[in-house]
Amino acid sequence: MSSEFELIHRHFTRPTAHTDLAVGDDAALMRPRPGMQLAVSTDMLVAGTHFFPDTDPHDLGWKTLAVNLSDLAAMGAEPRWAFLGLTLPGADEAWLAAFSAGLFACASRYGVDLAGGDTTRGPLTLSITILGELPAGKAITRAGGHTGDDIWVSGQPGLAALGLAALQHRIDLGPTGREHCIRALQHPTPRVELGLALRGIANAMLDVSDGLLGDLGHILERSDCGAEIDIALLPLAELRATGADEAQARRALLAGGDDYELLFCAPADRRDTVLKIAHEQGIALHRIGRLTGHPRQLMLRETDGRLLYPMLSGYDHFA
Amino acid sequence: MSSEFELIHRHFTRPTAHTDLAVGDDAALMRPRPGMQLAVSTDMLVAGTHFFPDTDPHDLGWKTLAVNLSDLAAMGAEPRWAFLGLTLPGADEAWLAAFSAGLFACASRYGVDLAGGDTTRGPLTLSITILGELPAGKAITRAGGHTGDDIWVSGQPGLAALGLAALQHRIDLGPTGREHCIRALQHPTPRVELGLALRGIANAMLDVSDGLLGDLGHILERSDCGAEIDIALLPLAELRATGADEAQARRALLAGGDDYELLFCAPADRRDTVLKIAHEQGIALHRIGRLTGHPRQLMLRETDGRLLYPMLSGYDHFA
Repeated sequence: MSSEFELIHRHFTRPTAHTDLAVGDDAALMRPRPGMQLAVSTDMLVAGTHFFPDTDPHDLGWKTLAVNLSDLAAMGAEPRWAFLGLTLPGADEAWLAAFSAGLFACASRYGVDLAGGDTTRGPLTLSITILGELPAGKAITRAGGHTGDDIWVSGQPGLAALGLAALQHRIDLGPTGREHCIRALQHPTPRVELGLALRGIANAMLDVSDGLLGDLGHILERSDCGAEIDIALLPLAELRATGADEAQARRALLAGGDDYELLFCAPADRRDTVLKIAHEQGIALHRIGRLTGHPRQLMLRETDGRLLYPMLSGYDHFA
Repeated sequence: MSSEFELIHRHFTRPTAHTDLAVGDDAALMRPRPGMQLAVSTDMLVAGTHFFPDTDPHDLGWKTLAVNLSDLAAMGAEPRWAFLGLTLPGADEAWLAAFSAGLFACASRYGVDLAGGDTTRGPLTLSITILGELPAGKAITRAGGHTGDDIWVSGQPGLAALGLAALQHRIDLGPTGREHCIRALQHPTPRVELGLALRGIANAMLDVSDGLLGDLGHILERSDCGAEIDIALLPLAELRATGADEAQARRALLAGGDDYELLFCAPADRRDTVLKIAHEQGIALHRIGRLTGHPRQLMLRETDGRLLYPMLSGYDHFA
């Protein structure tokens, strides 16, 4: 078995593009660009809680970084440097090779340097801290939503929840639908370019990691607003096409996590601009409702016009 | 049991001093000072590997941050922001209260903002990422040592190893010695002020976390030097006074980890300056040898003049 230092060196040392000193000293050194604010986020991913221990390690490497990129995207920040804490039950070289390949595939795609980390022995746990930059004062937080803002969501939220249900044999999808949904779960696309394009346009934003309604609740709380979601506007067709029934599709879209799509609020007079961004980036952006003046009140408008008042509950890791 | 969000809010949210936006959004926001370079380090601490699961949580909170501060100190960087990843088997409120109190005691002492984190369920694992600043280009790395440099070490390396041996009943110390050594193990003092004072004086530096000789080996490798350590110069008296015999004291000093003292190399003509810093800061700085021109060769000079050539081996987490 190779030593820790050899393993780290072999699999996690690659040339960096914008780091003064990376892996190998007491700390990494880097120079933020003048006038920029730092955005920093950290995530722990635990085997058995956040992923199946037998998840394909290449996918896991990709996703480990992708979920953190999603946090920066949700602030409108440009990702720059990542740090990896890796706790492993043993030094499995094949696993490390595939995991690091997946991680670096994501890092290269989004221009991120792996600038440092720590490897140790213990139950499989992944910890990523990501640093990004944005022009000072331009971050899109959860607190900037205004009554009357449109509520938008990117891509296709709900696929990952259906993928998880399929893996757990809780749902029976067609073979094509099943593969599509599992792919969404295991290989999410962080909406980095979208987050950047929405600077100066979105008033509030976050990434949907714990479920659309639950995460929307964080914006309502921080922005002191309510929300009305129009069921008729929800992008359900693609979910139905996977083989899910109507109830499963709705639940996946409104309460499913792990898609890492962006949910954002923008003034109604910026609709054309938002749709232009969607067109330019070749991604779907769905307007699904609007912010209201009733603090923390969430209302769903059914297709027949009835109004529903669901609980604002997301997935709670300690619930 | 409280929800994850309530627990985090109650125990880990305190006013920050130099963070634009801390805990509670997708990412934290902060503004590095103009002209400064960032120094970033990350560490994973796993119960059973790096600490006993029943370690006093206040001490553990202190140490979790202190070991990361030590990494920044070893670069000559000023610590500014910390991020905590916390994986817990359950939400034990008393444990969290004590752990966070210890963590914040260390954070306040050294002027660090806890700017963000992530809490999740799983085997007890602590992950800290720390960000510091230093004037661009002024970092003290492991690579700057020159032949002829004095080798110095701060404080009293070896105490923590004796403390661990005492806790594991591998050594029998007197009651006072035992308490002193266990305290050193569980409540290390990161040498932050010393690291800052050594900017422009030390050519190479690191913190002794895995054992003095093994860590010195990293400097020899990076600086392409050898080293001669003079046993007669080693600070052994305090270790002997704990009740350890000569062999135990030497082994603890040269191979024991977890003291988080600084090991540094400085030109011989800066001896007075180094001793002046020691006096000003009220800490011991021991000159224990010098760098030589024999790449990666480590030599110990015995008190009787004999020369020994020990293996350069530190503690390897995967060995």
